[in-house]
Amino acid sequence: MNLKNNLYTDTGWEIAEAAFNPDQVATTGSNFMIGNGYLGYRGTLVEWEADRYTACIVSDTYDKADGFRELCNVPNGLFTQLFVDGEMLSVFTGETHDYARGLDLRSGRFFRSQTWEGTRGQRVHLETERLASYDNLHLIAMRYRFRVAQPSQVVISTGIDGKVWNLNGEHFRTYAPSAEGDLLLFQAVTGELGTQIDVVEGLTLMGAQPQTRELVRGQRRIVRRLAFALERDQTVTMEKAVAIATSNDVSAPREHAQADARAALRDGYDATRTRHSKEWERIWAVSDIQIEGDLEDQITTRFSLYQNIIATPTHARLPIGARGLSCQVYQGAAFWDQEIFNLPMFLYTRPWIAKNILRYRHDTLDGAREKAERLGFGGAFYAWTSGKTGEELFPDFFFTDVLTGRRIRNHFNDWQIHISPDIVTSIWQYYVATGDWDFVVKHGAEIAFEVAQFLVSRSHYRVDKGRYELIRVLGPDEYHENVDNNAFTNHQTHFALEKALTIREMMKESAGGELEALFDRLGLTETDVENWKDIAERIYLPQPDPETLLIEQFEGYFQLEDVRPDEVRQRLLDPEEYWGWPNGVAVRTQVLKQADVLQLFALHDGLFAKDVMRANYDYYEPRTEHGSSLSPSVHSLVASRVGCPGRAYEYFKKGSTIDLYDASTKVMSGGTFLGGIHTAACGGVWQMIVQGFGGLHVDEAGIRLAPSLPDHWERVAFHLVIRNNLLAIELRGDEVRVRAAQENGGSVRVAVGEEVRVLSGGDSATMAV
Amino acid sequence: MNLKNNLYTDTGWEIAEAAFNPDQVATTGSNFMIGNGYLGYRGTLVEWEADRYTACIVSDTYDKADGFRELCNVPNGLFTQLFVDGEMLSVFTGETHDYARGLDLRSGRFFRSQTWEGTRGQRVHLETERLASYDNLHLIAMRYRFRVAQPSQVVISTGIDGKVWNLNGEHFRTYAPSAEGDLLLFQAVTGELGTQIDVVEGLTLMGAQPQTRELVRGQRRIVRRLAFALERDQTVTMEKAVAIATSNDVSAPREHAQADARAALRDGYDATRTRHSKEWERIWAVSDIQIEGDLEDQITTRFSLYQNIIATPTHARLPIGARGLSCQVYQGAAFWDQEIFNLPMFLYTRPWIAKNILRYRHDTLDGAREKAERLGFGGAFYAWTSGKTGEELFPDFFFTDVLTGRRIRNHFNDWQIHISPDIVTSIWQYYVATGDWDFVVKHGAEIAFEVAQFLVSRSHYRVDKGRYELIRVLGPDEYHENVDNNAFTNHQTHFALEKALTIREMMKESAGGELEALFDRLGLTETDVENWKDIAERIYLPQPDPETLLIEQFEGYFQLEDVRPDEVRQRLLDPEEYWGWPNGVAVRTQVLKQADVLQLFALHDGLFAKDVMRANYDYYEPRTEHGSSLSPSVHSLVASRVGCPGRAYEYFKKGSTIDLYDASTKVMSGGTFLGGIHTAACGGVWQMIVQGFGGLHVDEAGIRLAPSLPDHWERVAFHLVIRNNLLAIELRGDEVRVRAAQENGGSVRVAVGEEVRVLSGGDSATMAV
Repeated sequence: MNLKNNLYTDTGWEIAEAAFNPDQVATTGSNFMIGNGYLGYRGTLVEWEADRYTACIVSDTYDKADGFRELCNVPNGLFTQLFVDGEMLSVFTGETHDYARGLDLRSGRFFRSQTWEGTRGQRVHLETERLASYDNLHLIAMRYRFRVAQPSQVVISTGIDGKVWNLNGEHFRTYAPSAEGDLLLFQAVTGELGTQIDVVEGLTLMGAQPQTRELVRGQRRIVRRLAFALERDQTVTMEKAVAIATSNDVSAPREHAQADARAALRDGYDATRTRHSKEWERIWAVSDIQIEGDLEDQITTRFSLYQNIIATPTHARLPIGARGLSCQVYQGAAFWDQEIFNLPMFLYTRPWIAKNILRYRHDTLDGAREKAERLGFGGAFYAWTSGKTGEELFPDFFFTDVLTGRRIRNHFNDWQIHISPDIVTSIWQYYVATGDWDFVVKHGAEIAFEVAQFLVSRSHYRVDKGRYELIRVLGPDEYHENVDNNAFTNHQTHFALEKALTIREMMKESAGGELEALFDRLGLTETDVENWKDIAERIYLPQPDPETLLIEQFEGYFQLEDVRPDEVRQRLLDPEEYWGWPNGVAVRTQVLKQADVLQLFALHDGLFAKDVMRANYDYYEPRTEHGSSLSPSVHSLVASRVGCPGRAYEYFKKGSTIDLYDASTKVMSGGTFLGGIHTAACGGVWQMIVQGFGGLHVDEAGIRLAPSLPDHWERVAFHLVIRNNLLAIELRGDEVRVRAAQENGGSVRVAVGEEVRVLSGGDSATMAV
Repeated sequence: MNLKNNLYTDTGWEIAEAAFNPDQVATTGSNFMIGNGYLGYRGTLVEWEADRYTACIVSDTYDKADGFRELCNVPNGLFTQLFVDGEMLSVFTGETHDYARGLDLRSGRFFRSQTWEGTRGQRVHLETERLASYDNLHLIAMRYRFRVAQPSQVVISTGIDGKVWNLNGEHFRTYAPSAEGDLLLFQAVTGELGTQIDVVEGLTLMGAQPQTRELVRGQRRIVRRLAFALERDQTVTMEKAVAIATSNDVSAPREHAQADARAALRDGYDATRTRHSKEWERIWAVSDIQIEGDLEDQITTRFSLYQNIIATPTHARLPIGARGLSCQVYQGAAFWDQEIFNLPMFLYTRPWIAKNILRYRHDTLDGAREKAERLGFGGAFYAWTSGKTGEELFPDFFFTDVLTGRRIRNHFNDWQIHISPDIVTSIWQYYVATGDWDFVVKHGAEIAFEVAQFLVSRSHYRVDKGRYELIRVLGPDEYHENVDNNAFTNHQTHFALEKALTIREMMKESAGGELEALFDRLGLTETDVENWKDIAERIYLPQPDPETLLIEQFEGYFQLEDVRPDEVRQRLLDPEEYWGWPNGVAVRTQVLKQADVLQLFALHDGLFAKDVMRANYDYYEPRTEHGSSLSPSVHSLVASRVGCPGRAYEYFKKGSTIDLYDASTKVMSGGTFLGGIHTAACGGVWQMIVQGFGGLHVDEAGIRLAPSLPDHWERVAFHLVIRNNLLAIELRGDEVRVRAAQENGGSVRVAVGEEVRVLSGGDSATMAV
């Protein structure tokens, strides 16, 4: 089936482009990436160089350049140029037929095929595929096979290209390419922290042997030049194995990478691929969402799930980058997106990954404590942009005023305080979904208490009003900085304080002395608990207006100029201007960047009545610019909840195609390149379907499903893991089927409408909607 | 004696320019203005029109145009053009000799003389003078006398020019020029509020009678054309009387102005001038500062005193404009300048004027209450820009980003909260200097209590720190907006709360039930008083660092880039850029616009030890840009206090010549015209001399003088009125002479060093320094 943007799918498992579009080099490089949470390799063509955004981003390689501490793009071990009768195969020269480039999502493989006619009548057919192994995360494997149509002089230039694309400054202080036996090695050492990165490459040739071999070593590139005299229709297959290791993940990265590369070459590509595919089978068994009735929705959904999966480190406790491992944008670091958008899919399908993510937040508590202290607060104020250590990576000056060239001081890092309570919200959701009290005691409680301490120090009491306030904040709508009593932030703060109190109460009741030990370690006293209580009780919580039912986004919002995004867009003097502070076009208007009050509804189903949610949806939705890729999924989810299935589906279309159709996002804003995979939007796709269309609600009692599927969807099937019990869910227009896996150790209460079933292992139920 | 800028003085009482400089049309128009607190008439030439900034600004004519509610420039009743043989006498054409334009400060008169040779050999000598009567505030009188050197055909075109200069929009909805008998009348009605303004003009001719008289009436101008055939050396004298009245100050303005004009014409110019001069004699008797040893300092000082006097309405309770009545800049409205800069001179010489000013603040309490309520606070939050009613006149958007053309939201009006406690500080100073308890009970207490209520609502308590804070403020240094715990603002808040508590205590002790009545009327309870106490006790008061003795201007100030103003100036992309928020060159640096911590020292002598003041002076002074005309006088005053007489004198020179030498000020900033007389700087001159060089300190016990005169000043003499007792003070390098006026009813304690004298009426003392 043909899709927009030259894309197609046939099975709903593969997504590919049928024609090469040179204008989309940056976008397709992201979309067709492979990865495994340890590394990401962009879907670029192997003959390309840095100017076409080739990149292999490796987790845990944070290093600072030009003020940005970000992940490194390591030397490109797949680099391969094919010269046929002296002319390089390319998509830019000669003629290309039978072109395809895409992904097999089921097994996490990139593929490319192309029949190329050179300008001198050469003709060659290329088929190549590659994978970032889930069996050995350090490994990238590629099969590169070509057939010449007539006798040809062919040169393969293949090796490691260290001339890498850097979004900001140069990250390596030394580059050391070398050869050892058949292997090529490339060692780079980072400039700031001296992290050693080793890329080792080897290859196997089949179908022909080179007449000559030449090693070409430059300062930043090392390649073999292999020359062949090929006959008509002769096929040559090259298998490359590239292993990557760094001093941050193994003790002897060079030796480690060498061993991995040799082992992979010994096994051969097919064996590597088989092992890798098995891992993907296991992942999809619980992560897939089947959609019957719309193949396009099926493939865009799977694409999104795939991207969320490969963006997420599971080998270590590391952040999920806002652009995953697709490029250096946003520094390979976590934002609130991680808990609020990426995590729910894992929480309800592979909860150990959700736990891993939350433990990462526990690991980084010291960074959050330092940030709080530096800014004059107590407890833990999580980084807006969090790398390995949790130190604040967000630069004070991120955007540029494109009209004046002056840097803009954005206050994401110091005023967007909801990040801390957002993490507590996620901890609580994790506990409710898993019942993992052990995690709460060992990790969650410390986060919750330290966040509570931060919130105490960040709250201000107004004597005359007898209430606590949160002053000078930035809510999710990033176009309105420096506002007071942002409804989302105040309610989140309240929720986090309540949960800190609840956790404390629960720990008090459970014996073991952990509470006392933790309080001792954190230096907490009853006075602190009294403060949590006092603020939880007396913090100002914006409520719906009794007449209009509207909740004001922040104090004074309704007094702002009431215009729509299109009108505001007309006021731009430059299309790349940032719309927000200090003087952007949206600042003095009611135009929102993204869901803010609605975000509160998305996080807390049931906090407000449906008519309140509906009134606010109707008010805020037309005023929202959706300048963030986070926005459509929240709108879809809330539209489902308030009974607007048409709008829910429209936003689903928007939110599930952000990267594939390059829609709804700004690649440039305020002079900053913001491309790459929008991993949070990908996580949002799971939420739109399962929590939106499926109406999933999880609480201490069990789950509730309230499906309202898009009309033409015949069936949606997915899995859930609730308190360690696996459930297979099938939704149709009029019924819900639930099967509890045979091996389930407990039972799960499932409600649909008025009907409630308690399902133990092997049980199944069909319930009418 | 010749001064800079083509200026000269001979007696120290007159200041004039010896040559006309067309580049200084705007500045000299302000400098040579006449006025009487009711109206101001610029020192422009009578033949000029709106394009040369002619203006007659009348108090109490606030009306809104283009978003600015400001005083009106009324039709120009002095308008007179002299044609000699068909060519108009001018400073721009022909040749000018014996030119002078200036002021006789002693009698508040403008004078101009010029011998003009036209391009056709005509030759005429003009002598003219004018005054804005202090005997009848509605009256402007002019004598216009010329002599032709040879027989000439002369036409005088004189009348009322209604084509006025408007800084912002058009203020009049109707213009009605007319003639009634010999008088010309011009009625204008303002567009917003319908205020009726009547300008009535009449003249008397001597020395010749016109051959023809013609009345020329345009839509916005009415003039008589008087044609003369003059003989060689014939002198013609025209006396004009212009009377102005508005429906805001009299019930029948037209009739009132007609009567005034007729009376003045009947009396003749000389009589008008005599009566006017007598008033000035009375004013100078107590207001003058005599400086022996430097004629330049003498004249610049008198010029400053003169400008402060004529800017100040005494006929009604109206604000002192930041540019007085010199133009429409700053809307003819009061800022904190009024209490902190203009008022002290009056407080210690003509305290009834200080009282008038403070009663104006009482009159405008409702405006301050409304502002507080509108912004979500209690009590009284005084307008940053206060016209007649006290409503906030400062527009949200004042400056323009000259680089982008976008308007800048400046937060003078909502974040510069110190205005309210500043007024309370002034009330307390008034009480200490006058002992006028009756004023405190009737007016001061209500202000102090309402300001306390505002400060309670504007304070935020930090539970974790156990202290109150002032968040998101703008201190006197207007380049750093949105700061927390600005030392000046916090200390001022503390002072104001303490004084509210003191006044309450004192009222409690004095019988009469006024306290209870006032509390009832204001709805105040003991809980409110407890809040004042609690905040006064626990507000965070930035203190000197024990090592460096430095007081941080606001939280985080010392972390800002430490550069000097010259370096920052280099970063301007346009010389007219505003240096402050949102993205100005000073915002992220330690560069101050004007005294901020030092301002605290200026207001509260003795709050910090001399070494603390000195350390802070040394730190902040080189970082101060003096982008405000308020800055030099504070620096001079503090330099005197910390023992830096050289610097004190340098800043005196700067501060006393701001208008005359057009120094230290920006005429344009952020796209806004900011010219006109800097009345606060003029008031600052009195403070630099009396409180700085003279070391005057006034407290409940009496006065202290600690002179450190500039070395070459031989003698400084001025008067003080302390608790209704007049003192004549003479300072010399080594001694202080004080004479208590014969008529004094009480005694004043005078201290100089260790020596203390108590002087009753007729006493005098000479005390060694």
